[in-house]
Amino acid sequence: MAQDFSTREENYSQWYNDIVIKADLAENSAVRGCMVIKPYGYAIWEKMQAVLDKMFKDTGHSNAYFPLFIPKSFFSKEASHVEGFAKECAIVTHYRLKNSPDGKGVIVDETAKLEEELIVRPTSETIIWDTYRNWVQSYRDLPILVNQWANVVRWEMRTRLFLRTAEFLWQEGHTAHSTQNEAIAETEQMLKVYADFVENWMALPVLQGIKSANERFAGAVETYCIESLMQDGKALQAGTSHFLGQNFAKAFDVKFTNKEGKQDYVWATSWGVSTRLIGALIMAHSDDKGLVLPPKLAPFQVVIVPIYKKDEQLAEVSVKALEIKKALEAIGISVKYDNRDTQKPGWKFAEYEFKGVPVRLALGPRDIEEGTVEVARRDTLEKKTYSQENIAETIKNLLEDIQKNLFDKAYKFREDSTTKVDNWEEFKSVLNNKGGFVLAHWDGTSETEQKIKEETKATIRCIPLNNPLEDGKCVFSGKPSIQRVVFAKSY
Amino acid sequence: MAQDFSTREENYSQWYNDIVIKADLAENSAVRGCMVIKPYGYAIWEKMQAVLDKMFKDTGHSNAYFPLFIPKSFFSKEASHVEGFAKECAIVTHYRLKNSPDGKGVIVDETAKLEEELIVRPTSETIIWDTYRNWVQSYRDLPILVNQWANVVRWEMRTRLFLRTAEFLWQEGHTAHSTQNEAIAETEQMLKVYADFVENWMALPVLQGIKSANERFAGAVETYCIESLMQDGKALQAGTSHFLGQNFAKAFDVKFTNKEGKQDYVWATSWGVSTRLIGALIMAHSDDKGLVLPPKLAPFQVVIVPIYKKDEQLAEVSVKALEIKKALEAIGISVKYDNRDTQKPGWKFAEYEFKGVPVRLALGPRDIEEGTVEVARRDTLEKKTYSQENIAETIKNLLEDIQKNLFDKAYKFREDSTTKVDNWEEFKSVLNNKGGFVLAHWDGTSETEQKIKEETKATIRCIPLNNPLEDGKCVFSGKPSIQRVVFAKSY
Repeated sequence: MAQDFSTREENYSQWYNDIVIKADLAENSAVRGCMVIKPYGYAIWEKMQAVLDKMFKDTGHSNAYFPLFIPKSFFSKEASHVEGFAKECAIVTHYRLKNSPDGKGVIVDETAKLEEELIVRPTSETIIWDTYRNWVQSYRDLPILVNQWANVVRWEMRTRLFLRTAEFLWQEGHTAHSTQNEAIAETEQMLKVYADFVENWMALPVLQGIKSANERFAGAVETYCIESLMQDGKALQAGTSHFLGQNFAKAFDVKFTNKEGKQDYVWATSWGVSTRLIGALIMAHSDDKGLVLPPKLAPFQVVIVPIYKKDEQLAEVSVKALEIKKALEAIGISVKYDNRDTQKPGWKFAEYEFKGVPVRLALGPRDIEEGTVEVARRDTLEKKTYSQENIAETIKNLLEDIQKNLFDKAYKFREDSTTKVDNWEEFKSVLNNKGGFVLAHWDGTSETEQKIKEETKATIRCIPLNNPLEDGKCVFSGKPSIQRVVFAKSY
Repeated sequence: MAQDFSTREENYSQWYNDIVIKADLAENSAVRGCMVIKPYGYAIWEKMQAVLDKMFKDTGHSNAYFPLFIPKSFFSKEASHVEGFAKECAIVTHYRLKNSPDGKGVIVDETAKLEEELIVRPTSETIIWDTYRNWVQSYRDLPILVNQWANVVRWEMRTRLFLRTAEFLWQEGHTAHSTQNEAIAETEQMLKVYADFVENWMALPVLQGIKSANERFAGAVETYCIESLMQDGKALQAGTSHFLGQNFAKAFDVKFTNKEGKQDYVWATSWGVSTRLIGALIMAHSDDKGLVLPPKLAPFQVVIVPIYKKDEQLAEVSVKALEIKKALEAIGISVKYDNRDTQKPGWKFAEYEFKGVPVRLALGPRDIEEGTVEVARRDTLEKKTYSQENIAETIKNLLEDIQKNLFDKAYKFREDSTTKVDNWEEFKSVLNNKGGFVLAHWDGTSETEQKIKEETKATIRCIPLNNPLEDGKCVFSGKPSIQRVVFAKSY
């Protein structure tokens, strides 16, 4: 393995795909646009889920589960939701197969046609708000703070593993509140939860901001987002948190009696992140040697490879290796000891390097004699020999250092890739040559945003929270502007 | 809440449904046959998942994720699989909606018709074995020990919350092995894992056995199962583990080179349990006062209710209550402190009793004075006053006692409900009047089994593992038999 793959410079897109495939993270399936998430890739998702799920619960949320299918008519209920959504989706029309009359396989039983077609959920606002109607009578029933871990389907025409697939896994939080302020506070709280997760676990710095009207979620009053920058200078939206106002409550008639005894519509939020985060994780840190994983999300943080020629040597090395494994595990470090005799150490080194294991220990007969161990860190590819004494503490510090180093590197990259631009030629030139985030004045109209997109493919990624106000002129129209916004090409 | 519901005797089926609905476990959705699992019900599923997932990982399995959709043609590849399966299922035929010309909502875009219909997975053997073909070349790639947590859809005509729903959540393990013996050992190992879980966590005794040919999974060589008995005397299949032989490997052409350098087909197993287990849990232990949960799977094990008249009293009681909560949590007991002022203690007592919280503590001003706390256990409904000293230890022992008591009670019930029967009149009479498990001789033919089913609705639940052999005559046909098998009506 791990020999024949592209570098970023040769072909960034191929490089990404090679890592996904050859590091055994995921692969395409027999079903167009649907991926198989392989055990090593799924283990990253499980780590992400565990951390996020705890964050959601620590902020008062519970998990629940809503149906996979949504009646077609539900999509028409919230006018802007149907406009922006639900066109490209999987539609269930029948509920029975039968044996083919020619005896070759099965065919659809045309008599088993549904009265109303069912849509495989592309997102669950409609079915959830239809459900909440029966859960809410009075302010005592609020807030509802519910999250769902689920699969969703959007019939994307062009798909890329993790980044854009027809089916993907995600979580979607759907909360209901008695006041506007409480709902906005929830929207902002969940944005902060996402930013905390992406920065402190994925080691990837994010911009927090709000979307322009063009880029807003269909049915939202305001969409908050976190935006990260990939190594090819393109932005990737890592998570969104929507303040939905009373739009869905009105569409699904969800009212409550407030403390004053009056009827009012419920205020809503929704927020989500998906397996797309794995795509971001891969693209953020990996290099031409393969995947690089931040220690906090690596399926295993340390691999120990025994070096030996004779079986007695392996026995001796194994005793020490398992001792080290135990010491590391005792302080919460996950370790794999790879004593397979079907592969040579060199092959294993290449394998784990390509798979992004943060730290590799090699242990041979000479190490046993001298009380040493060879330690290789994946991020810098440095090798160093350490004493076996206090090795657990050494590795613990090293993992923390790697986690920090990955963040710092990504942060520096983002800073270096962020450019203030004040005229149209420069705007185009920076986008085409340097890429990255471009901070430019904008006149605030959807029309201008649309034209910029047509000419450059760049969109407004966000208007940062606490954005400094400054007078200026729109980079495209020359009209007055009160602030710079963040433009970029994006995934 | 918790006032208006059926008893078991009045209407067993309504009693079950009332508990599910009124204990906030689940409800029907707007989509026929699909349920909403509410937070309290989902919390039970999360507990089950956590325990099972650890058991799977401890036995060497990893999680992965395979597509929701399966191409229609895949179902025709394994002949007996298609015969027994895949007829009643959700079929995706189109991938796009469009605005209705009359401006009212959306309609299916007939131009966006799939070339081949996609089936929403009723189980994943076919898509997984199509995938495994590319994962396996040599014996070095085996075994594959993979599990998937997923939603599946079977278009059931008659549905009941948790027990039989069109969409349900489950896990499905799919393993690939180089030898028949290894695959059979895996099948048996997973059956033991399930039995361990159901007996020691759900507090529900099970019979372990194999299915007769009639009841075998479509495509399996042998189906192992665990069977439990519900309070109405009906059996419920709690989990299955299938030895699939080389059937799916042959259907999907999954070969490997063995150690001798020869090509052979891979040996397979699959095994699963589902949200149906929640239905079993409810029916196994609950009583006419509502849900009864075994402590090991209760979303919270202890609830503390403060008793007070004045606000100063609440303040004083809360200090002690939170102290007790902390002491309990320190030894791993989950606790809810319900100090809501919107509901009275009596209402809360009824609520938690109905919701099956294993232990309820009540704490009032007099308890503060006397250093006591009132403890009510849900299983026996006994109340007793304990000293606050060592309360954590007291509760810990009590929870263990409740867990054991529930199992013992269910075990005694099953023993009392198991009857050896030696003639046809008695067979029918026991099934119709007493119900439960009937141990009777059977001639081993599918024909007899079918006739017994037609006349009595009873099926062979299993042929127990290590079943004692004894000469006898088939209770129906009078033909010679070598062993008794377990008959029952079932869910």
